[in-house]
Order: sequence, then structure tokens, then C-alpha cells
Amino acid sequence: MDNARIDDVLKKIERTRQARRHKFYLRDEKISLSHGSGGKATHNLIEGVFAPAFSNPLLDPMDDAATFSINGTGQRLAFTTDTYVVSPLFFPGGDIGKLAVHGTINDLAMAGAEPLYLSAGFILEEGFPISDLRRIVASMAQAASEAGVAIVTGDTKVVQRGKADGLFVNTTGVGIVRATWQLGQTQLQPGDKVLLSGPVGDHGIAIMLAREALEIETDIESDTAPLHTLVAALLSAAGEGIHCLKDPTRGGVATTLNEMALGSEVSIALEERAIPVHDGVRGACEILGLDPLTIANEGKLLAIVSPAMAGTALATMRAHPLGSEATIIGSVQAEPPGLVFLHTDIGGMRVLDMLVGDPLPRIC
Amino acid sequence: MDNARIDDVLKKIERTRQARRHKFYLRDEKISLSHGSGGKATHNLIEGVFAPAFSNPLLDPMDDAATFSINGTGQRLAFTTDTYVVSPLFFPGGDIGKLAVHGTINDLAMAGAEPLYLSAGFILEEGFPISDLRRIVASMAQAASEAGVAIVTGDTKVVQRGKADGLFVNTTGVGIVRATWQLGQTQLQPGDKVLLSGPVGDHGIAIMLAREALEIETDIESDTAPLHTLVAALLSAAGEGIHCLKDPTRGGVATTLNEMALGSEVSIALEERAIPVHDGVRGACEILGLDPLTIANEGKLLAIVSPAMAGTALATMRAHPLGSEATIIGSVQAEPPGLVFLHTDIGGMRVLDMLVGDPLPRIC
Repeated sequence: MDNARIDDVLKKIERTRQARRHKFYLRDEKISLSHGSGGKATHNLIEGVFAPAFSNPLLDPMDDAATFSINGTGQRLAFTTDTYVVSPLFFPGGDIGKLAVHGTINDLAMAGAEPLYLSAGFILEEGFPISDLRRIVASMAQAASEAGVAIVTGDTKVVQRGKADGLFVNTTGVGIVRATWQLGQTQLQPGDKVLLSGPVGDHGIAIMLAREALEIETDIESDTAPLHTLVAALLSAAGEGIHCLKDPTRGGVATTLNEMALGSEVSIALEERAIPVHDGVRGACEILGLDPLTIANEGKLLAIVSPAMAGTALATMRAHPLGSEATIIGSVQAEPPGLVFLHTDIGGMRVLDMLVGDPLPRIC
Repeated sequence: MDNARIDDVLKKIERTRQARRHKFYLRDEKISLSHGSGGKATHNLIEGVFAPAFSNPLLDPMDDAATFSINGTGQRLAFTTDTYVVSPLFFPGGDIGKLAVHGTINDLAMAGAEPLYLSAGFILEEGFPISDLRRIVASMAQAASEAGVAIVTGDTKVVQRGKADGLFVNTTGVGIVRATWQLGQTQLQPGDKVLLSGPVGDHGIAIMLAREALEIETDIESDTAPLHTLVAALLSAAGEGIHCLKDPTRGGVATTLNEMALGSEVSIALEERAIPVHDGVRGACEILGLDPLTIANEGKLLAIVSPAMAGTALATMRAHPLGSEATIIGSVQAEPPGLVFLHTDIGGMRVLDMLVGDPLPRIC
């Protein structure tokens, strides 16, 4: 880029930073689908309603899992919750049950925890076929068993026909934190490398294509997978070199990295060409006008790693079946704080914002 | 009763026992509202679908909370989940948020645990007023603060208009088990006394009257309340004399005591005249053809206590603001196992079954 274009970009960045000061102001009077996107509107809602009301030292870091010590034991536990409303309930590569087990395992894993126990809370709509419920429950049981966790407590509620959409499920999880250091979105350091465990966008596009009667032929399946063994390998190999782990679900890589940049008051610079995207996802995104970086993933993680340990972490990821296509996609810088930008394939540079609006409601 | 009538009752009991062997057989092909009642159909669903699929030693006792040790720490944790779909969201005496906090605190307390941390997972319907959300969140925050627990992690999902009913919320809780002995519905012993902390049916009737445009004038309010300090006092005063604690929510006292009778293979005999019922609840039940013993409570507990400690436990309950109207309502017997029966006010005796059907859907 020539100097004039760089100046333009920097001016835009400054304008964006100004705008961000008011970013999480909740102006809306009613809930809209975008409040469930995981992107900017979700943050507005969280910062405008939940965070001030519930504020406490364990909640305030706004990581996906809370961690706390059990008095006098020297053990730290991680605790996380997620409700699943994905539509359709069955999709290529999985179903709502498998997704609910994997998603909560992954939120525990991203806190550096070994997942132990899950709860399952169901909302069923009157008229829902019990055969479908059996399939979903069997899928949850299998996913839990394969991951070595147990579903130990549950609850079932039923609402009248038309007051839900078949089945919703909440899974909440408890695990033991194995990382002895602080992990999380406030821990990024300038110089850190950004590692991505594999191609992005599979889950979101698989759901969208399963839902809409779109004439796009692909073999894209959801990437839903439990990432705890990949995390265990990373923590073991790279230790305190691992500063933050996060699975880019709702809102995709773009939103997740923006949360980190804001949480640590750093900048993240990405190389677009380094980010793997399956051809089918890229094609579908082009047709639909979507950015693969804002599309949800359910079996991928971002690891922010010290420069000294980045090579070790990358090799460890590539040696694991769920990280065989891992790459380094960017790095952390001190300035400008709170921003993510992308060096594009065509030699340009653009600010990569959180997901705005919601192209894909009910993705998880 | 004369001998012929006693013989009749015993024959009926034997028939009921035979019937119970097939009691939890799930014949239905579709979910109906009765599967959410907390009564017999809920048990059919749990025993027919969830219990066999998820079976593990922590789940199988089917208590409201699972308890487990954290390896090597000597501490036992309790873990419990509940989803709330009550309609209407605001009702005399409370709202869905307060109910969700109290309900999960109570499930932890009934496991002999000190509640510590809660998660909150929301499902919001597109178009839901943010002012209502703020009221509910503020109510949750206040209820948590008053009870000394923190909401430490959360999740929000949004579904399209017509795919939910305003707001649903799941609260899952973690606590430290203070009871060093085994508490639960498998621990009843013949001779134990059945203590009830106060009048029954307030919550269910308050919800029903708030929902329906019934021309019944009462001042009945939900009894929603956090019972953990009452439990702490009981455990401290009566120690291992406390064999089982349970809050009779969905399905009421009748269903809860049936679960205990089945869980411990004992019989429970109740004195109808000993069971306190507010006049307004009794009147509404008479008009509506409901049994107060099957109506949900949200601030009452049943304690099964050894005969030696029953007096101490009763005095302790009566000294607590939430147990001032506590009474002994019956006792545990060896025979006939799995049955609850009621000595009625008019000198008769009847088998008291679990709630069948669902007179009051979406009560919590």
C-alpha cells in the first residue's frame, strides 16, 4: 500500500475506535434475532442488561467459562452453560444433541479444564415425536461417552404446541482446570501468534444449506467435535506459552478475535491467505454474500501462543486428528488497541469487525 | 375401619402394586403436556428415554441434584439443573427470574449442599420487550444476592417470533455438600417421621389464578423462597437424623412422597388433617376439582427424619421464618412398599398416587 492508502486506513481505524466507545450501548426496545447472533448486538445486550445486573468477579472477565477455587482444596473448577436452539435439529454431520455435548465440552476445554460432568435441561414442544427425542438423546449419550464425560443430572419441561420449536436443550458443564496459569481473552501479549486449528465456516454453512432450499450442491458437513483432547495436548506441549484458547462459534473467527482484542486491549493482524476455508464453504459464502470469518464453527479453536512456543503448539495441533490442517493466521500487536485487521489476498488491508446483524439465526 | 373395609383397601393396594410394575412404560408416540407435569407421565418419559440412555452411577439415584467428589480434595459437590417455562412470566409473589434462582438453590439445598454458583441460560423470543427482560434479570440478581450466591456464567439465544413464549431460562447450580452422610430418596427408614415446612399449594394456585380469567378472589401468592438456610439449620440441629429432604414442586407433595416411597421401597402414611392448606388454596382447589397435594410449591420442603430427631427437627423448622407453620404429617412404614396412603379427615383411607395428567401446565 502507498502512504496515502495507509493514512486512509488509519483514519478509518481511528473513526472505528471512536465508534467503539459507544459500541455496546443498547438502544433497542425489543429483542431481535441479531441479539442472538453472538456478534455486536449480542454484546450490546450482554453489556446493556446482563453484565451490570449480575456483575461479580467471576462473571466479569466474560470468558466462556467461569473458574473458581473450592475452598481449601487447591483445585480450580470451570463452570459453563450453553442453550441450543439450532434449526434444523438434524443436519449433515450431527444433530442438536451431539452439538450440545460438544459445545459445552469445548467451553470447558477453552478454560484449560478437563470436562467431567454435564447437566441436560430439555424444553419439548407438545406433539414432538418421541422417536426424534430418542435419536437426540442417544446421540448425546454417545457423544458424552466418546468424550469420557457423564450426563449426571437433568430436567424436562413441556410447553404447548406453538410455544417452542420442537426441542431446545441446555447443557451446563463442570470440569477441573488443569492449566495452573491464567488463560483467557485478557491474556494476549504483543508478539503472540494466532493459531487456527483448521478450515473455518463448515458448521454455519452446513446448517444454512440444510435449512434453506438452496440449490447449492456441496458436501459440507458440520465440523462439530469435542476439542478437549486437542487442548490437553496443547497445554502439555506448550504450557504457559498458551495465553488464550477459544472456539469461534457464533459470530465466527472475526467476532472471537475482536472479543480478544477488546479484552486484552491489543490489536490482531491476520493474513487472509493463511486462513483455510473449504472450497464448498467459500463457494457458498460467495453466492450468499457472507464472509467465512463470521460463520460459526463447532470443532475449531483459536490459540494465542507466545512466539517462543508457537512452533511447538503448531506441531502439536498438526499431530492431532482435529488439528491436522492447523496454521498460523496472524499475530498480536500493541497498536491500535481493540482492533482486528486483515491483510487481504489482493494486498489491501481492512478492519475486520465483529459480526453485525445475523445472517444465520439459530446456528447453535 | 372394620375388617372388611381394611381387606378392601389391602386388595386395592395389591392391585395398585401390580399396576406399578408397568407404571413407567412409555406408550406415547408424541410429547404431551402431561410429560411436563412432574407426575406419572414425566416419570414414564424419564424412565423410558433419558434414564436408560444416560445411565451412570451419579445419575441413577434420580435425586434432584447429582453429588460427586473432586478427586483427592475430600469435598463433595452438588450439581443440579432446571429449566423454567412458567406462564405468565410475572405473577403474584414473584416472576420467572426469582423462581429460577430459588428453584436451583433449593435443589442444591435438598442435596445437603450450600449453594455457591449459578449459571443462567436464556432463550428469548424475537420481539420480547427489553424492559421485561431488565425486570426479570434484576429480579434474578436480587434473589441471588439475597441468598448469597453468584450468577457466574451465562448464555443467550434468540428464536424467531412464534418459536418460543417470550422468555425461558435455565439455571444450573453448583454447591458444596455439607452433609457428611447419605441423604436422598433411597434413605427412608420405617419409623421415620414426615415433616412438612408449611401450607401446600400456594405457588400452583397463584400461577393458575394469574393465568386464567377465573372469577375466584383470593390473596394467594407464590411461596417462592430460597430454602438453603432452613436446610442448614436442620442439618445442624438434627444431623444424621435427617434422611431425606425434598421440595415438593411439580406434582406436589403427593408425587414427591411417591418418589420417595418407590426409591426406598417403603410405605408412607399421611394424616390428611395434619397437612396445612391455606383457605384460599383449599377453596380454589374445591372449585377447580384439584387436590392440593398434587399442586406445586416453590418454598416448602419435606423432611424425612428419624423418630429420635423428629421433635428437634420440628422445633428447628418452626424457629425459622420459612418453617413457622411446620408440622409432622405422617410416618414411614415397611409395608406395603412403594405406596403412599392417606388417612382422610372423614376417617377413611385412600391410596395417594402421583399426579396423573397435568391440570396445571407450565407451573415452573
